[in-house]
Amino acid sequence: MGYYPPSLVRLIKHLSRLPGIGEKTATRLALHILRSSYEDAKGLSESILEVKDRVRLCSKCFGLADTDPCNLCASPHRDRTIVCVVEQPSDLVALEKSGAFKGLYHVLHGALSPMNGIGPDDLKIKELVTRVADGKIRELILATNTNVEGEATASYLAQRFKAYPARVTRIASGVPMGSDLKYLDEVTISRAMERRREL
Amino acid sequence: MGYYPPSLVRLIKHLSRLPGIGEKTATRLALHILRSSYEDAKGLSESILEVKDRVRLCSKCFGLADTDPCNLCASPHRDRTIVCVVEQPSDLVALEKSGAFKGLYHVLHGALSPMNGIGPDDLKIKELVTRVADGKIRELILATNTNVEGEATASYLAQRFKAYPARVTRIASGVPMGSDLKYLDEVTISRAMERRREL
Repeated sequence: MGYYPPSLVRLIKHLSRLPGIGEKTATRLALHILRSSYEDAKGLSESILEVKDRVRLCSKCFGLADTDPCNLCASPHRDRTIVCVVEQPSDLVALEKSGAFKGLYHVLHGALSPMNGIGPDDLKIKELVTRVADGKIRELILATNTNVEGEATASYLAQRFKAYPARVTRIASGVPMGSDLKYLDEVTISRAMERRREL
Repeated sequence: MGYYPPSLVRLIKHLSRLPGIGEKTATRLALHILRSSYEDAKGLSESILEVKDRVRLCSKCFGLADTDPCNLCASPHRDRTIVCVVEQPSDLVALEKSGAFKGLYHVLHGALSPMNGIGPDDLKIKELVTRVADGKIRELILATNTNVEGEATASYLAQRFKAYPARVTRIASGVPMGSDLKYLDEVTISRAMERRREL
């Protein structure tokens, strides 16, 4: 790396700080940027700063947005009486892609994890309580992940919102579509058996 | 991707134009940049433009450089009578890392490839002839790759420099160090047998 010109070495160093990008990949990317047109490089460079300047958290749902409130919260086509609680903005995007949900979201920005010192005050739970407390929300769908932290967060929230009139539900867990039972873990299979339904 | 804010979508698009980076990886990188400090993002953004602004080809060896002539060509510690011919700047770096060569370089920026319409005039061969013609070069080491194009380029150059007083040599080919014969291809093994040497 030190055998390249100093400016190229600096770019390689910056690129190799990105997740999953080692020095070899960073070198390949840097050489590609060097060969690409000035417009392409400028576009990439500017879009990095633009993201840092523009993207904020929506003050209602805490999703990523260029505007406040975000497009989803501002949309007249969404059901404002159902709120789906997710851990991260990327979970929100996964749900939106599925097209299965037409309500509003609430992004917690994490999950409870006492091992890592993350308690209820480190997540956007206080803000969720405020939203639910105004009484217009009929249903709260807990769509945190189904790993240990996500399950614990869902249990905690279910407990916390017991006293409120809103119905609290949890997304179904079971065998994912298109999968082969022999490759699935035991917990998923037992869960799918326990929660079997009448056809 | 369309579910993220427009500025984030633009960054994802720019990142996914990089080689080996698909939409999923680009999204992961963009979210990382969004979470990283403003200084880190600014450093990355600026180093991209800096590379485009500063890095030029050295007018002597056609390697990548911030200065002209490059550090290698300007160094008083290099043997100016031996020139090693490589295809790409990354090959030059690989040789420098090995520490096995203390002369100067000449980067062709490609290899002859009639299939892809790349002839002698598309490479820095005319410039190499000018360098050799001034008579100070004692040896020309052809270190193009050992694939079809690289071998063809080496043969072409050997022919072209026959009339010049400089000695023309080719890097050795054979079994790479630390390798297992059973996993090697037949061509490498026959080459290693043919060119065996007395111990």
